Amino acid sequence: MAHHPIVTLTTDFGLNDHFVGAMKGVILDIVPECEIVDISHAVQAFDVLDGAIAISQAYSYFPTGTVHVVVVDPGVGTTRRPILASSDGYHFVAPDNGVLSLVYAKEERIHVRHITSEHYFRQPVSSTFHGRDVFAPVGAYLAKMVDSHKFGEEIEDYVKFAAPRPKPAGENKIRAVVLKVDRFGNLITNVTPADIPALFGEKAGSFKITVGNKEITSIHSAFAEGEPGEVFGILGSMGYLEIVANRAAAAQLTGAGKGSEVSIVLGAAAGKGA
Amino acid sequence: MAHHPIVTLTTDFGLNDHFVGAMKGVILDIVPECEIVDISHAVQAFDVLDGAIAISQAYSYFPTGTVHVVVVDPGVGTTRRPILASSDGYHFVAPDNGVLSLVYAKEERIHVRHITSEHYFRQPVSSTFHGRDVFAPVGAYLAKMVDSHKFGEEIEDYVKFAAPRPKPAGENKIRAVVLKVDRFGNLITNVTPADIPALFGEKAGSFKITVGNKEITSIHSAFAEGEPGEVFGILGSMGYLEIVANRAAAAQLTGAGKGSEVSIVLGAAAGKGA
Amino acid sequence: MAHHPIVTLTTDFGLNDHFVGAMKGVILDIVPECEIVDISHAVQAFDVLDGAIAISQAYSYFPTGTVHVVVVDPGVGTTRRPILASSDGYHFVAPDNGVLSLVYAKEERIHVRHITSEHYFRQPVSSTFHGRDVFAPVGAYLAKMVDSHKFGEEIEDYVKFAAPRPKPAGENKIRAVVLKVDRFGNLITNVTPADIPALFGEKAGSFKITVGNKEITSIHSAFAEGEPGEVFGILGSMGYLEIVANRAAAAQLTGAGKGSEVSIVLGAAAGKGA
Repeated sequence: MAHHPIVTLTTDFGLNDHFVGAMKGVILDIVPECEIVDISHAVQAFDVLDGAIAISQAYSYFPTGTVHVVVVDPGVGTTRRPILASSDGYHFVAPDNGVLSLVYAKEERIHVRHITSEHYFRQPVSSTFHGRDVFAPVGAYLAKMVDSHKFGEEIEDYVKFAAPRPKPAGENKIRAVVLKVDRFGNLITNVTPADIPALFGEKAGSFKITVGNKEITSIHSAFAEGEPGEVFGILGSMGYLEIVANRAAAAQLTGAGKGSEVSIVLGAAAGKGA
Repeated sequence: MAHHPIVTLTTDFGLNDHFVGAMKGVILDIVPECEIVDISHAVQAFDVLDGAIAISQAYSYFPTGTVHVVVVDPGVGTTRRPILASSDGYHFVAPDNGVLSLVYAKEERIHVRHITSEHYFRQPVSSTFHGRDVFAPVGAYLAKMVDSHKFGEEIEDYVKFAAPRPKPAGENKIRAVVLKVDRFGNLITNVTPADIPALFGEKAGSFKITVGNKEITSIHSAFAEGEPGEVFGILGSMGYLEIVANRAAAAQLTGAGKGSEVSIVLGAAAGKGA
Repeated sequence: MAHHPIVTLTTDFGLNDHFVGAMKGVILDIVPECEIVDISHAVQAFDVLDGAIAISQAYSYFPTGTVHVVVVDPGVGTTRRPILASSDGYHFVAPDNGVLSLVYAKEERIHVRHITSEHYFRQPVSSTFHGRDVFAPVGAYLAKMVDSHKFGEEIEDYVKFAAPRPKPAGENKIRAVVLKVDRFGNLITNVTPADIPALFGEKAGSFKITVGNKEITSIHSAFAEGEPGEVFGILGSMGYLEIVANRAAAAQLTGAGKGSEVSIVLGAAAGKGA
């Protein structure tokens, strides 16, 4: 099959302005046969972790060779570096502020370059919109099969943060957090089955999860298994424990939201008063 | 002309998360040369009728051979079946919950199959995101020209509901309903010219339509024919009577919304007090 | 390289309904290999100036030959004309209500035609949705390389308005306006460096800008140069003075919004009380 270039976009630009349209124009002007796919433009403004979650949850479904452009860039116009990270399957173009941290965590082999070859930029480069002037054109030239080593030297000191992980908080007690709230009002926590096997599947024991003003004592495997008004847990499609409800928004039912604490008590202690 | 595969997406996933991006990645991984078109991702959450309206209003404008993937799926992970409905011109991939009902009503010849060939699914299949794991890949293989009969056996007992229709409510009185409110605040009712010819065109007589706190006594043929502040009727582009205003939101002016009652009195009775 | 047709869409239709999907279906039915790119569908409803800003800020980044379809059309169904404007590089299809005014201002050579060749329309033409029935199919036939002169006669009396410009308001005082608020809450004013050189770069002198409840006395070149809570000016990527904050919404901090007055005092007077 002939090479079919695909570029994805993940930004906090929203869809209310011309920003995304301008980026797409720049890309198509360089590689007109490119298919441009939006992953999300609704990353919370300036929220690098939220952007890191979005790209890390979507990139791996795309065909090998896809170029992922990620722009959540509160440091635009400063000395923060533009980078190109290349794994075995994908290229990622982004500011060096940690927005690729969760990609680094999933990809065993990755090479990160500081993009310095300014002849691939759109000139003049503005100080406020590198999505249009730097990241879009670099992504387009990558889609056009320009070799990654032509964009700059490899670096090792790129910015990388760890996602917040659940923490022990006393005997049989764990403190976790709501990473994000999705469109349906599901609360996506940072708890994976590897973190707390006792919550899931055949190994499940008794437990009590407190989120907002609700105590959750059951985990189901499908949304429709919940009773009307019941708030319960589910192992969601992102690989995390989600606090959800059947045809209703758990965020509303619990009063919890992004950043809310999730308190988990396991075993016999779960039966006692908190 | 060479085969150019087109897949459309209609979901209640919104655009704030990575869900739609992940579905597109799955599709492009199977059929990279595919053009993916969003019909809407703003179907009201869990609202099967709203999804049925969206797909039924858009599908027929696409070229023959287009594959329409429709995911409004509150029963995901339960025993509700995934189905493939094929008309003379299109394939539709959806959960069997009635979301294709208004398509069935428009297409004379349609064959519906229960999708059981799991080797076309993305493995492992999650229990909460069949948009990514079932419907997107099946749509992609259809776009890749896999024969529809390979996906499963034909069924006759698929779920189908009737859209709400206007009902007689006494002499010369009809009770209708607001099906949806569009972006401009126009109230789309479920009244067609075939239902009440006396409202439209040359056959129009006197009438009075009550919606929310307004009485409507005129039907215009263009938005700009309305006086400032006037609420009036129009035969809209969806084929339904719409209650609208000129450069203003009728939903706001009437206090009515989705599901609001629309009361229509025809003829001499329209002149009298309600 | 082979001809690769690109059509962009700029509308006030929003993404909550099937409208944009229907337009895309119509285009693909005529030219299936077309790449359709959304510039924005969030133009403020009925707001021709807002649409004019959106298209004028994005069109020039696209490759030569791109067809730009612009539909902000409160006069749909009346006698307002559909037009085709052709510059050296692009075609624009739109209602003749001034929505292309800022394009006319940027393009030296432009030919405007009244589209009268109804055989290029989708029949029957509705009176409320010319996006689907007139502008989309005309755009598609243009993308299919139908000659522009086939769509109708050239006209000179097309509607054109001037964008609001900053005005002198006493000695060393200028009154400007907020043209729009972007996704980040940045206030985009109508002031360019050509209007007031004394605000920017090496020629910058002392000044005081009043917007909402804030006085601004500094202009930075990057968002991240602002102190927490500071409201300041920046020369934005649209070519206008923007009133912004670092990782915060200036609209909120100033209490100002679209249409708000921007008062600028230059030189020694800036130091005195207002």
